[in-house]
Amino acid sequence: MKIAFLGLGNMGEAMATNLLNAGHELTVYNRTASKAAPLEKLGATVAATPAQAVQDAAIAFSMVTDDAALQALCTGPYGFLPALAQGAIHASCSTVAPDTNRRLAEEHARHGSHLVATPVFGKPEAAAAAKLWLVMAGDEGAKQTLRPVLEVLGQGSAQDFGPDPGAANVIKLCGNFMLGAAIQAMAEAFTLAQKSGLERQQVYEFFTTTLFNLPVYKSYGKLVAERHYQPVGAAPAIIRKDLRLVLDEARTHVVPMPFANIIFDQLSATVAKKEDVDWAGFAERVAENAGL
Amino acid sequence: MKIAFLGLGNMGEAMATNLLNAGHELTVYNRTASKAAPLEKLGATVAATPAQAVQDAAIAFSMVTDDAALQALCTGPYGFLPALAQGAIHASCSTVAPDTNRRLAEEHARHGSHLVATPVFGKPEAAAAAKLWLVMAGDEGAKQTLRPVLEVLGQGSAQDFGPDPGAANVIKLCGNFMLGAAIQAMAEAFTLAQKSGLERQQVYEFFTTTLFNLPVYKSYGKLVAERHYQPVGAAPAIIRKDLRLVLDEARTHVVPMPFANIIFDQLSATVAKKEDVDWAGFAERVAENAGL
Amino acid sequence: MKIAFLGLGNMGEAMATNLLNAGHELTVYNRTASKAAPLEKLGATVAATPAQAVQDAAIAFSMVTDDAALQALCTGPYGFLPALAQGAIHASCSTVAPDTNRRLAEEHARHGSHLVATPVFGKPEAAAAAKLWLVMAGDEGAKQTLRPVLEVLGQGSAQDFGPDPGAANVIKLCGNFMLGAAIQAMAEAFTLAQKSGLERQQVYEFFTTTLFNLPVYKSYGKLVAERHYQPVGAAPAIIRKDLRLVLDEARTHVVPMPFANIIFDQLSATVAKKEDVDWAGFAERVAENAGL
Amino acid sequence: MKIAFLGLGNMGEAMATNLLNAGHELTVYNRTASKAAPLEKLGATVAATPAQAVQDAAIAFSMVTDDAALQALCTGPYGFLPALAQGAIHASCSTVAPDTNRRLAEEHARHGSHLVATPVFGKPEAAAAAKLWLVMAGDEGAKQTLRPVLEVLGQGSAQDFGPDPGAANVIKLCGNFMLGAAIQAMAEAFTLAQKSGLERQQVYEFFTTTLFNLPVYKSYGKLVAERHYQPVGAAPAIIRKDLRLVLDEARTHVVPMPFANIIFDQLSATVAKKEDVDWAGFAERVAENAGL
Repeated sequence: MKIAFLGLGNMGEAMATNLLNAGHELTVYNRTASKAAPLEKLGATVAATPAQAVQDAAIAFSMVTDDAALQALCTGPYGFLPALAQGAIHASCSTVAPDTNRRLAEEHARHGSHLVATPVFGKPEAAAAAKLWLVMAGDEGAKQTLRPVLEVLGQGSAQDFGPDPGAANVIKLCGNFMLGAAIQAMAEAFTLAQKSGLERQQVYEFFTTTLFNLPVYKSYGKLVAERHYQPVGAAPAIIRKDLRLVLDEARTHVVPMPFANIIFDQLSATVAKKEDVDWAGFAERVAENAGL
Repeated sequence: MKIAFLGLGNMGEAMATNLLNAGHELTVYNRTASKAAPLEKLGATVAATPAQAVQDAAIAFSMVTDDAALQALCTGPYGFLPALAQGAIHASCSTVAPDTNRRLAEEHARHGSHLVATPVFGKPEAAAAAKLWLVMAGDEGAKQTLRPVLEVLGQGSAQDFGPDPGAANVIKLCGNFMLGAAIQAMAEAFTLAQKSGLERQQVYEFFTTTLFNLPVYKSYGKLVAERHYQPVGAAPAIIRKDLRLVLDEARTHVVPMPFANIIFDQLSATVAKKEDVDWAGFAERVAENAGL
Repeated sequence: MKIAFLGLGNMGEAMATNLLNAGHELTVYNRTASKAAPLEKLGATVAATPAQAVQDAAIAFSMVTDDAALQALCTGPYGFLPALAQGAIHASCSTVAPDTNRRLAEEHARHGSHLVATPVFGKPEAAAAAKLWLVMAGDEGAKQTLRPVLEVLGQGSAQDFGPDPGAANVIKLCGNFMLGAAIQAMAEAFTLAQKSGLERQQVYEFFTTTLFNLPVYKSYGKLVAERHYQPVGAAPAIIRKDLRLVLDEARTHVVPMPFANIIFDQLSATVAKKEDVDWAGFAERVAENAGL
Repeated sequence: MKIAFLGLGNMGEAMATNLLNAGHELTVYNRTASKAAPLEKLGATVAATPAQAVQDAAIAFSMVTDDAALQALCTGPYGFLPALAQGAIHASCSTVAPDTNRRLAEEHARHGSHLVATPVFGKPEAAAAAKLWLVMAGDEGAKQTLRPVLEVLGQGSAQDFGPDPGAANVIKLCGNFMLGAAIQAMAEAFTLAQKSGLERQQVYEFFTTTLFNLPVYKSYGKLVAERHYQPVGAAPAIIRKDLRLVLDEARTHVVPMPFANIIFDQLSATVAKKEDVDWAGFAERVAENAGL
């Protein structure tokens, strides 16, 4: 199938590579063009503009940093929305506000194309290993077309959250919030244990081989146990933006979320201190407040 | 081996049954004697007092509600500590303050016996299925004697946390705190999703088959998704006591724990409202504050 | 002086009356025209549109509910900004985002007029008694013209916060936050005292005649002590909007504000429960969580 | 009247001096005897032990650091309780748990004397200026005897909180909590204002001459505005103890207090960082988290 992929960060590049390996005819675009070189070597065509990238594509994936970047990619100068073929599908993978995808979906519908929200869960390593978890929400027919294509990106089939594209983003935001809560819980537990005379490492190993024997606890817990937040998978400012979107939804729907407030505030303090760490490094606020 | 088991609540009864099934010679004691009847039928001897229960026992297990009950069992009227044989081992399973086991361990040592802290993780069903997770801390020789006996109670071998018996209780407290954090995180996420138009049940199913595919998320998450907190595995007041112990440790060691404060406060509100629910029912505070 | 007053809610009507009593020639406008009748009887002219109201006015006061209302009043259909005389001054009294006044100030400047942000502190009773506290920020010359006019509205002279109109709104937001914090502090203290066996009323009287002998503690504390939040001075949704603006500023400038989060969440729960009470009624969340 | 004063810290020395100046015959005791020298010069008798200090005294004041110190003073080696004359009155001024004074009051009653809880509000300067606020609770007759004596220590008459001596301590704890809340509120407001471009000092001056024109806001607010927490009126560890007592009462009576949790945690972090500042220095946690 003829597919376009726009946005070649760590996540996007890995996903695009998997689509290429699955035999699709791929055209790629990235704002910083040099990032497209590896994919070009693997056989992808490199487009000079978003609009050019989607020429004749049946499906256009987008994976960018935030709402403004997605909006610009679609409807800014050389944006791809006007260039999409009739009936083409935009698989919108970025972590954005539910309303951003809802509003863009309406613009696609007016234009004769479809936006399906397809956020993904997983780190860049999981993307490279085609082990992402996928969800999707939007137009019924478009989702049916998309489903087999998405399968080469993740483990299991994409979970369908119905016709409202915003619903898929709500799930993505809930997931990132729950990850943050797991990190903060480990930070408090490991710090308490350490100051009570135990070794962080042993506490980590015990929990992640018993009650919390789960990849997300293992991978983030390792950073918290070692108090070493390198390399930077996602910067604190990026996930702070996600938590801001969580709190925005919570405001709109009048849902007090005390845990979300704490995670957001710790991410904010980490941003304010200008630390160059992975986002899980907000866990250091707990250690600091305990005088470690 | 000749073993005594003191404290036959839901957890204790299931654990005692497994020891009996493993071929040990068992004497049991419970404050309310009628609870001992099923074990008596299976071949256990029923003792009239704690002191009587431990006559000739090589190992005495205790599993009671709180610090005061454990203290009374050991050194109150007819308490078993003075009656323990020289060299006998007390496997102290209750969720109590680290210092309670530390202080009792010293009393055992003066008396010529050993206290090993052996708290367990798991619900009564896990205890019945011999699927508990076990930890132990205390005297080296006593732990070696205890290890094979503990193996019939749980999955895997007991994790050893060193010579300080209090260390095992710190781990237990950390674990209960982390469970509470997972419940609160799901409560906030599911409530946000519901008020954003999604179905709690679908959100629950997605997360517990992907990122949070883990028994503790599945079992507690089901209660939170259905907003139905029956049957009562552990009452809110019991786990509120555990979180109080967490915050006591945090005070002693000067560790600010914002998540623990929130869980404790929600448990307190649940106790104040006199709700007859499982402890996970504190998640309803989130739903209420969102007007559900 | 020829003055226009737009927005005749409880606050606006009282302030307009004082301007009229001070001898100014007043034209008034309100979306719901009937609210203008009392002022008309006192000698004010009633305008049919915002634009008509400011004809020939040297100063136009605005006092409306939120940012959207202020924006509409200025630049919506029949908005008054295009109708302002060259050099005229807009005294912008509403509690809005600092950036709203900053942006509007630029529009005024382009048009040849001035916006001075002049938020006020005090309840409608204080407005009627000319006992408001006033602040102002904006163009130097405009503030000098405005100062004597503002004096008839409040006690003391308006405090000058410099040339940035947004600064005055920051102060207003900080003030409303601090009021909310005082209310929450009393709610916690009075509830603790009551559940410890003391009488809320005596606790209230002691503190507000000694350490906290201050009108804001007395007036809001009376509501909290009596747990009776009538009449409605400002609805929870209104002040929730103010706290939202506080948290928006805190996001923009990366300032974790744990107290502000708690006040906002309690106001949200009060809005979610659809209670018809004064905004201080968020204090009931404390009583409820204590089982009262 | 023959009066004993035990505990000559900053507060105690100032109070004892005022009693002496009022013409009372004073015997004083302090663990570190050298602290008694200034009072001796003014005419006080210095006792070598607590028991000796209260010989023939009609009233014995105590003002010490915490519950353990008070208990030791009363019933430890050379403790004064057994030495009190029949019918003598112990005016217990320390900030201790309500139950500590309740339990001691029963011991006094058995012995034939009276304990009246008489905590005071105010800094050492206020004590020196006889401007403390006083409360009292306990035996009716003893309070009547005490009232005129207390009058030389403070402004106004002592507020009577009934026969339960614990009630007076509840009030004292509520007061210290409310002071902490005012400090935290100013810390958040001043930090937000500063990062929004305003000057902390001007914000402080505005609020403490208008809405919050009150000595407690002025004195603590000055420290927060200047971010200079010297000299040390009371160390963070002392007031952390008070907040711990607040949270203990809140646990006992099942009252969630989110503001109290935050203040306690910030004080804990300040203790963990070993800062040599006045207790109001916990406000620095807000500044730090905002990257200042």
